[in-house]
Amino acid sequence: MQHIGVVDTTFSRVDMATAAIDELKASHTGFKIIRRTVPGIKDLPAACKILFDTEQCDIIMALGMPGAQPIDKQCAHEASLGLILTQVLVGKHIIEVFVHLDEAATDKDLQKLALTRAREHARNVIALLYSPQSLTRHAGAGLREGFEDVGPARP
Amino acid sequence: MQHIGVVDTTFSRVDMATAAIDELKASHTGFKIIRRTVPGIKDLPAACKILFDTEQCDIIMALGMPGAQPIDKQCAHEASLGLILTQVLVGKHIIEVFVHLDEAATDKDLQKLALTRAREHARNVIALLYSPQSLTRHAGAGLREGFEDVGPARP
Amino acid sequence: MQHIGVVDTTFSRVDMATAAIDELKASHTGFKIIRRTVPGIKDLPAACKILFDTEQCDIIMALGMPGAQPIDKQCAHEASLGLILTQVLVGKHIIEVFVHLDEAATDKDLQKLALTRAREHARNVIALLYSPQSLTRHAGAGLREGFEDVGPARP
Amino acid sequence: MQHIGVVDTTFSRVDMATAAIDELKASHTGFKIIRRTVPGIKDLPAACKILFDTEQCDIIMALGMPGAQPIDKQCAHEASLGLILTQVLVGKHIIEVFVHLDEAATDKDLQKLALTRAREHARNVIALLYSPQSLTRHAGAGLREGFEDVGPARP
Amino acid sequence: MQHIGVVDTTFSRVDMATAAIDELKASHTGFKIIRRTVPGIKDLPAACKILFDTEQCDIIMALGMPGAQPIDKQCAHEASLGLILTQVLVGKHIIEVFVHLDEAATDKDLQKLALTRAREHARNVIALLYSPQSLTRHAGAGLREGFEDVGPARP
Repeated sequence: MQHIGVVDTTFSRVDMATAAIDELKASHTGFKIIRRTVPGIKDLPAACKILFDTEQCDIIMALGMPGAQPIDKQCAHEASLGLILTQVLVGKHIIEVFVHLDEAATDKDLQKLALTRAREHARNVIALLYSPQSLTRHAGAGLREGFEDVGPARP
Repeated sequence: MQHIGVVDTTFSRVDMATAAIDELKASHTGFKIIRRTVPGIKDLPAACKILFDTEQCDIIMALGMPGAQPIDKQCAHEASLGLILTQVLVGKHIIEVFVHLDEAATDKDLQKLALTRAREHARNVIALLYSPQSLTRHAGAGLREGFEDVGPARP
Repeated sequence: MQHIGVVDTTFSRVDMATAAIDELKASHTGFKIIRRTVPGIKDLPAACKILFDTEQCDIIMALGMPGAQPIDKQCAHEASLGLILTQVLVGKHIIEVFVHLDEAATDKDLQKLALTRAREHARNVIALLYSPQSLTRHAGAGLREGFEDVGPARP
Repeated sequence: MQHIGVVDTTFSRVDMATAAIDELKASHTGFKIIRRTVPGIKDLPAACKILFDTEQCDIIMALGMPGAQPIDKQCAHEASLGLILTQVLVGKHIIEVFVHLDEAATDKDLQKLALTRAREHARNVIALLYSPQSLTRHAGAGLREGFEDVGPARP
Repeated sequence: MQHIGVVDTTFSRVDMATAAIDELKASHTGFKIIRRTVPGIKDLPAACKILFDTEQCDIIMALGMPGAQPIDKQCAHEASLGLILTQVLVGKHIIEVFVHLDEAATDKDLQKLALTRAREHARNVIALLYSPQSLTRHAGAGLREGFEDVGPARP
């Protein structure tokens, strides 16, 4: 049985993990989900490493909501580098689902964006886990999680 | 018995570690605290690695107070990356408690912010150590250590 | 038999991998190509590490198309650092083929640039794999993949 | 017997290492000093790693003087990250003593700042090596190596 | 017999490696030189790691010529971090010889700067390899490879 980790934060203003888990369960069955919550996005890499080490996760979703200030952008950068480091050391995917607070103008838009992106990336997780070659059908297709797809270049 | 490391700096203008230790002891019992102090925030990653290697720490608080100049922001960035690297290599959490000198306008506000953030993160440490799933109750709740919580998005 | 990995993204607006594979096959024979597609450029390092670990790849092409916004530049930076980390840990080359969305003004130019760069880097991959010293003939020659070569300095 | 490494550069405009070694010897006795000089600050991480690997150093001082241009700031950033990486991998402290060329307006001020900072950090090295808990007396005291101490926040 | 690696790029507009090799041979004898060429500076870290792994290099020169645009500066930053990572993991020096295209106004100046810097760093390589303590005579001397030395601070 495959193990899927889902890690999110108390800093986020939207509970993206619940949406992601709901989408995971709707897309496929037969796996075990392990969820953890940490204070902020900079705690995500360690949480993922611990899940890989102790819960035999095959893939992890790391959900976070960086703030809008320059220092927040720096934190997101550090968190992303840590998530990439973890993936490379472990040899497994962590799908990062970050929604920056300045990507949406209102709480309503923020919530919609966050939940949509979380669900769309949950489907990416299922694809990577159960049919690692299936995304190739959409290679170069200009997909955008959370927003409308841009589509391929049309010369 | 769990071991909690607490590392801070002589560069900081507030003794956050003493407040953090006081809060740790008030929140839970039965653990051993190991405290170390280093000159600046860029010395924190090595100090944490040494505590993990030699004192069997299960989790560490790393407290620092970066300056307000661009070079200080760069130092904070480097320190944060080193703390994340350490966590990923060791597979344990380091809760970073950084208060930037330009987050507060007066010494009074700076002290209040620093001590509040240290105490609130001490409670996060207790949660991660003794009930790793307990923070999930606040997932997406928009918590902010040191400042008033922003709260979840309210569409 | 040599194994060549080719990894691209669904975020990209041009299917560069198909062009790269076509060029690989036209330039040389006798190798096996393993292709994978991931959502975005930040997923490329893990995909490459997995290919090195599980498919015995000797070299990998990592193709991506970062967006034009500052956050996209940061993502490209993180992806590049992850690709370099992977190469250094594994001791094998990953040829990064990134085309930034703001490198071309029209979809037509974007497609042409992306396909040309992918094909020219495919030839670099063949050179590195089968005649690692052959590029020395062009050392200091001011080559530019995707654009016209600048040429050597002419004092 | 403890081994203290001291590494500096030919790029620097002040011989900080000689001052640091003088201060080390004045502050404590019974250790062996191993000195190396490299061209620039980006060579310091490798030099430190080599000293840890081949000379059994217990702690190292890395002294450098980055230039004032943006590219120099980038070099300093890279050097610092490399020094932190080395510390975390080895599990020992490297005390970075960097003096930026734009920290002082005249050669006289530059020399004074560099020598003062080198000596003050030499005393930090002695403290970390012989009494790792001794710096805690100054935790949160707002110490500044090379400049006048700022002192603790005074609400 | 010592092994010296020399790695350069086809992106560079000056063949610095040939000058470096000429200088190496003029400065000392009895070593073996292994030369490789890669497309761009971001390929240098992997090339160096491969040379350390497969050719028993004792030290490597990595020569490159980053472009003048912001994206080129970012590439140079990534390459430098990768070179530092490689050095720290392997415990050997890589002397980075980068000449930025905007360091010189004309092709003539660019060529002169590049060849001079390559030769001066070749002498640094000889010093590090055969007399690792010899550079200490110039510690704090304000040396500048490729440009006139600035000299020590003169209070």
